[in-house]
Amino acid sequence: MLVLNDNEISGLLSSEEVIATVEAALVANEQNSCVVPKRMHIDWGENTFLSMPSFSDTYFGTKLVSVVPANRSQQLAVTNGAMLLNDASTGFPLAIMNAAKLTALRTGALGAIGIKYMTPPDIDSIGLIGCGVQGIQQAIFATAVRPVKKIYCLQRSAAGMTTFTAALRRYSPSVQIVPCNDVITILQQTDVIIAASRSATPVLPDDASLLENKHFISIGSYKPDMQELPDHVFRLSGKLAIDSVFAKVETGDIINPLRKGILQEEDVFTIGKLLTGEVKIDVTRTTAYKSAGMALFDLFMAKALYETAKARDIGTNIPF
Amino acid sequence: MLVLNDNEISGLLSSEEVIATVEAALVANEQNSCVVPKRMHIDWGENTFLSMPSFSDTYFGTKLVSVVPANRSQQLAVTNGAMLLNDASTGFPLAIMNAAKLTALRTGALGAIGIKYMTPPDIDSIGLIGCGVQGIQQAIFATAVRPVKKIYCLQRSAAGMTTFTAALRRYSPSVQIVPCNDVITILQQTDVIIAASRSATPVLPDDASLLENKHFISIGSYKPDMQELPDHVFRLSGKLAIDSVFAKVETGDIINPLRKGILQEEDVFTIGKLLTGEVKIDVTRTTAYKSAGMALFDLFMAKALYETAKARDIGTNIPF
Repeated sequence: MLVLNDNEISGLLSSEEVIATVEAALVANEQNSCVVPKRMHIDWGENTFLSMPSFSDTYFGTKLVSVVPANRSQQLAVTNGAMLLNDASTGFPLAIMNAAKLTALRTGALGAIGIKYMTPPDIDSIGLIGCGVQGIQQAIFATAVRPVKKIYCLQRSAAGMTTFTAALRRYSPSVQIVPCNDVITILQQTDVIIAASRSATPVLPDDASLLENKHFISIGSYKPDMQELPDHVFRLSGKLAIDSVFAKVETGDIINPLRKGILQEEDVFTIGKLLTGEVKIDVTRTTAYKSAGMALFDLFMAKALYETAKARDIGTNIPF
Repeated sequence: MLVLNDNEISGLLSSEEVIATVEAALVANEQNSCVVPKRMHIDWGENTFLSMPSFSDTYFGTKLVSVVPANRSQQLAVTNGAMLLNDASTGFPLAIMNAAKLTALRTGALGAIGIKYMTPPDIDSIGLIGCGVQGIQQAIFATAVRPVKKIYCLQRSAAGMTTFTAALRRYSPSVQIVPCNDVITILQQTDVIIAASRSATPVLPDDASLLENKHFISIGSYKPDMQELPDHVFRLSGKLAIDSVFAKVETGDIINPLRKGILQEEDVFTIGKLLTGEVKIDVTRTTAYKSAGMALFDLFMAKALYETAKARDIGTNIPF
């Protein structure tokens, strides 16, 4: 049993390798070469537990995640978990990994894949609404797919902004961070908006003149009663890319525009179809992309981390 | 993260401690003090995957098990898995344990609890049908609850019998092992019959005169199309103890007698009710007990193993 903790996972793969890993998962998902059951969701008290298994030809794995909101008041991480990786031919457990960094990395890559396939190639700035744990990864991974020079940031807590700035300095020292007081300023300055908030209601004004021909990526909303992007984003884009079909029942950013008739079922497509070429879009017009995550991304990440760690003799190997 | 492998788990708890642990889980289950969701069952190809979470006030945990039948042809264990234990107040992962020995121990204890509460106290022999991995544990744990002097064994494979004998010699050197060629001989010699087979059809003759006033424990059948005990066992006992209500939909040893009207719903009771005193039975008459396992037993075992390992500084502790 190989044990990989967050520190060991942090340095194992470059941003480019993480993006390639998640792209491989998106393509495998389009080819139906893997089995991804609906995740198990248990509420116990105020807390949530998720069991997320998925299966490929060579490996299978399960991410076990808990969400304990009361942790916040004690300055502890709200979301914690571990990922067990198994050999698909024998079922033997191979590795246990801390799920926090693994999840953060693949979520960063999922946002960056939205930028890579749904914005013009010469984008040199992004706007970021919410600069917490997820926002940091969004910013870091954005710099891996576009020559980003400026990041326009909206982050309510000063402590959050300090953490964000420190993290960016470490990974992308040349990028200029521009704190903003409102989203209008961000919309006036940049064409790519990434929402990584925990907001239940849209974080942008529902004003077509401010939204047209811009590119919107929603990362934060993960429940049916959460919607980060305003309705006009979907009206202007006329299409919505999603990272998996499971997202259709998980987040208000897909459920609501479908329910209101702003989008039809056939307007919603998995972003993997942009990678395989099955769908083509005009990146000079308004585009919209909602990422909600899926067990298969975690499995492909765990596989890449495991194989790289073994090759480089990273982690602790324990007879099991 | 504390990592416990099978070797470390083997020596941590005495049979009496394992039995007390499983008894505590049975009582907690009667008191509804824990949350036990229906386990997640995924078939992929010929293989099966199970995700079994459960939640108590202090800990929660998930056993992840794979069943790969093709392993048998390569002399590898068919069933493999790991158990993740978490702190219930924060969600933090605390320990990862090999699930093989943990499962074997709690299954042995579940059988022994059947003997302890459903047979006369002076029982000094048992009959064992199927002496594989599960059978070994049934025999070892039986000696912890009754002064067992003889074990009458039916085991088709000679290699299996050799392994069984070697294991019993190690744990219970004074017990006499009596290999038998047929079940009639076993029924004539002893009053307690434990079926730990993988048989789909009853392993005993459906003959009331051979079965009356004896005590039957079924451990092996784990699917709706598997039934180890013949119908007359249920006719004679008139009641059936089970280890959890989940077993009612999992195994033919409960489904079939209910479907045929041999037993009514009210005749089937959880064995925890014998521990709490809510149900009383006459142990001088025919008794029947079906154990199918449940996530809560694994959680209580993981808790006991974790706390004992920490107190004795056993296992490998790795920053996670």
